[in-house]
Amino acid sequence: MSYKLRIKEIVETRNSRLGVIFDQSIQLLIVASVISFSLETLPYLSDEANLYLRIFEIVCIFVFTVEYLIRFWVSERKLSFVLSFNGLVDLMAILPFYLSIGLDLRSVRILRLLRLFRILKLAKYSSALSRFHVAFKLAKEELVLFFSVTLAVVYLASVGIYYFENTAQPVAFASVFDSLWWAVITLTTVGYGDVYPITVGGRIFTFIILMIGLGIVSIPAGIVASALAKARKIQDEE
Amino acid sequence: MSYKLRIKEIVETRNSRLGVIFDQSIQLLIVASVISFSLETLPYLSDEANLYLRIFEIVCIFVFTVEYLIRFWVSERKLSFVLSFNGLVDLMAILPFYLSIGLDLRSVRILRLLRLFRILKLAKYSSALSRFHVAFKLAKEELVLFFSVTLAVVYLASVGIYYFENTAQPVAFASVFDSLWWAVITLTTVGYGDVYPITVGGRIFTFIILMIGLGIVSIPAGIVASALAKARKIQDEE
Amino acid sequence: MSYKLRIKEIVETRNSRLGVIFDQSIQLLIVASVISFSLETLPYLSDEANLYLRIFEIVCIFVFTVEYLIRFWVSERKLSFVLSFNGLVDLMAILPFYLSIGLDLRSVRILRLLRLFRILKLAKYSSALSRFHVAFKLAKEELVLFFSVTLAVVYLASVGIYYFENTAQPVAFASVFDSLWWAVITLTTVGYGDVYPITVGGRIFTFIILMIGLGIVSIPAGIVASALAKARKIQDEE
Amino acid sequence: MSYKLRIKEIVETRNSRLGVIFDQSIQLLIVASVISFSLETLPYLSDEANLYLRIFEIVCIFVFTVEYLIRFWVSERKLSFVLSFNGLVDLMAILPFYLSIGLDLRSVRILRLLRLFRILKLAKYSSALSRFHVAFKLAKEELVLFFSVTLAVVYLASVGIYYFENTAQPVAFASVFDSLWWAVITLTTVGYGDVYPITVGGRIFTFIILMIGLGIVSIPAGIVASALAKARKIQDEE
Repeated sequence: MSYKLRIKEIVETRNSRLGVIFDQSIQLLIVASVISFSLETLPYLSDEANLYLRIFEIVCIFVFTVEYLIRFWVSERKLSFVLSFNGLVDLMAILPFYLSIGLDLRSVRILRLLRLFRILKLAKYSSALSRFHVAFKLAKEELVLFFSVTLAVVYLASVGIYYFENTAQPVAFASVFDSLWWAVITLTTVGYGDVYPITVGGRIFTFIILMIGLGIVSIPAGIVASALAKARKIQDEE
Repeated sequence: MSYKLRIKEIVETRNSRLGVIFDQSIQLLIVASVISFSLETLPYLSDEANLYLRIFEIVCIFVFTVEYLIRFWVSERKLSFVLSFNGLVDLMAILPFYLSIGLDLRSVRILRLLRLFRILKLAKYSSALSRFHVAFKLAKEELVLFFSVTLAVVYLASVGIYYFENTAQPVAFASVFDSLWWAVITLTTVGYGDVYPITVGGRIFTFIILMIGLGIVSIPAGIVASALAKARKIQDEE
Repeated sequence: MSYKLRIKEIVETRNSRLGVIFDQSIQLLIVASVISFSLETLPYLSDEANLYLRIFEIVCIFVFTVEYLIRFWVSERKLSFVLSFNGLVDLMAILPFYLSIGLDLRSVRILRLLRLFRILKLAKYSSALSRFHVAFKLAKEELVLFFSVTLAVVYLASVGIYYFENTAQPVAFASVFDSLWWAVITLTTVGYGDVYPITVGGRIFTFIILMIGLGIVSIPAGIVASALAKARKIQDEE
Repeated sequence: MSYKLRIKEIVETRNSRLGVIFDQSIQLLIVASVISFSLETLPYLSDEANLYLRIFEIVCIFVFTVEYLIRFWVSERKLSFVLSFNGLVDLMAILPFYLSIGLDLRSVRILRLLRLFRILKLAKYSSALSRFHVAFKLAKEELVLFFSVTLAVVYLASVGIYYFENTAQPVAFASVFDSLWWAVITLTTVGYGDVYPITVGGRIFTFIILMIGLGIVSIPAGIVASALAKARKIQDEE
């Protein structure tokens, strides 16, 4: 029994040297597994490279499965571990592999995407997120309001430009939905240049919308700044 | 009489369960009506789809008209309801439909735009806007000043680039008004890429204007941040 | 003598009703003169339109000259008025016209640009600028430092991209000076799309530079925000 | 000995008039040397211009070498000077030249890049950096966290767009690595316009990612703003 307790300490805490090594090895493997996932998407990969990536994938899945089983074994409340955030993320990281064995190749391609949930495993290790968490909770209501206002402005901008540009550019601004793409790319100041107004009315409208949009885009910075300042104050007072 | 009072409570407040259901149904219908409006702009819609959208539009108008009449009926001061912000918005949402019945089809197209005023009806339901409202009142004077300075910088930028680029690109920078379009798209950092300087002088000028412009664009964020911080402080002290 | 004093009050202050009317008329004429200047740059203007703009220009110059002479006449210290900021701006607004009479037409075109100094006359009338002025003085040192750091980053970015892209794109990235254009347009997030890296090395370099650049671009917003907050505090305490 | 002490005062401090002149001359030469480096990259330079630039380069190296030797001579702890930040930067500025004498011309081209380390010598002279330094130390942890979150979002965005756009645009979105370029250019709102989504799914995904990305991009502004405000407070209290 004390043997199980020692493993529990290694797996669940970072108190011992072995616990730190275990933690860092798992993190390293997650990063390596994510890189391997990216490499698989490269076109014209040689069969040899594909084989190595496949073997590495199987090794990763094996290690993550063993890790999951150990965590399950050492946990005191089995069910609450399985249903916890960490437990679900760990399961999501290995499940798609086993599900894809029995299926044909096409659907596997989409299931592979689920493997990326592994990246969420890294989030568990970061304790410094707490201040952001406090700031987020403080600013939650304002951020929801900001997103609603942004959505309304984006929508009204796309309706406006549709009426100005639809006649001059019937393909680029074919409907309000096509105009929505323009509104998103313009109000976020990305400006790819694939669609832009060419009529005088559309350009004046763009100018007015951008003046308002600039003010709106600057709001989350203000919200986050004041929330972070307050979160720091709360933490300092504790 | 107590029957009228009960309806009044349902329509005007969210105290009872029926009041909440009434409120949410109206909100849902507004969103559905806005989506239906967007769908109508899609090109190559089948006659069948057009018919369904038209029927849905008539249903919406009918419900909004009934809602308006009920609100009018239960209000104690009839005239002040009609002239209130909510009353006017409600009227604007249905009036264009009735006006367009007697008119020919061309002008209806423009009147349909007025139907979008319905989206403003959603604003009535949000009570969380108050902090933004306080912040806006605090920062009003500075925001007006900021917009004046921005307008002056945009104008001077367009005059400057006109003198640098007019000879090299006589079409893109044909006049100060054409240059204004460049100035707006550049200073807001949208940068579509449809017009940009190609002369050495114009590029150096763009660099200087952008350095100043970046400073100016960052001002509203600062204004909003300090105004929101103060608005939060005022609300906390109350 | 009391006649001169009354004119002095009208011209120099806004205490009387006539003083307010005089002030607003001059402001209106400045705006009209700036719009007229913009209209003159339109290509393919009819001879008639050109004539009307020319007449309006002469009227403006006449009024501004009379205004300048009256201000000179009522001022107690003639020399200090001529050398003051307002006096110099007023002179700059009319001088180019008189200088261009004796000269040939080509050089007049450049002198016309000086007429835009009139827009600075509007700045005189805004008293609300004081808080921005206080904030600017507080943040001056930091803004100078920020601009130095930005210049250094822009320069190093352009040297870096030159070494990555010069071989692949010998025209777009012909020298460090051509790369500077890319660096300015990228780090300010304008991104016209006329020049962009195509090599793998250049893209990774762009990614790193943008990560650093985003942090730097956010600095002035922070400086301005904290300076404005302090300026407001100083004004509240007075 | 007092002769050596006087030189030490000139070279190491700005107390005497000669010390200030020495300092400013060295700074001027660094800037001139950086400009000369940029001029060398210009294509189609005449042989004469190349010769003049080469001579100026040798003069710079000579002065910087003499400066380094004097600083070495007057320093009390020779070894700690050589290993100090200033000592290493000074050495890096001259070493590449001497190393390149014995080597063939190709490798010199890369070594010339190292000469740019001279620009770091300018950083020594700025004492106003201290507040930024304090602010950076305060915000270090949060900035590291921000960069991690940004990297994760950029990566997940590139995986997402790969699955949406890969079939429609097999060249532009060939692999996750190609999609990474799109993700960086879009989330930083640069938006060159060389790659952009064309499918409906990809555009909706871009919209969602940009909404999240805008919030993330605004975080460093908030971090820097609150850190600078605190750094100013710390300095005021001292």
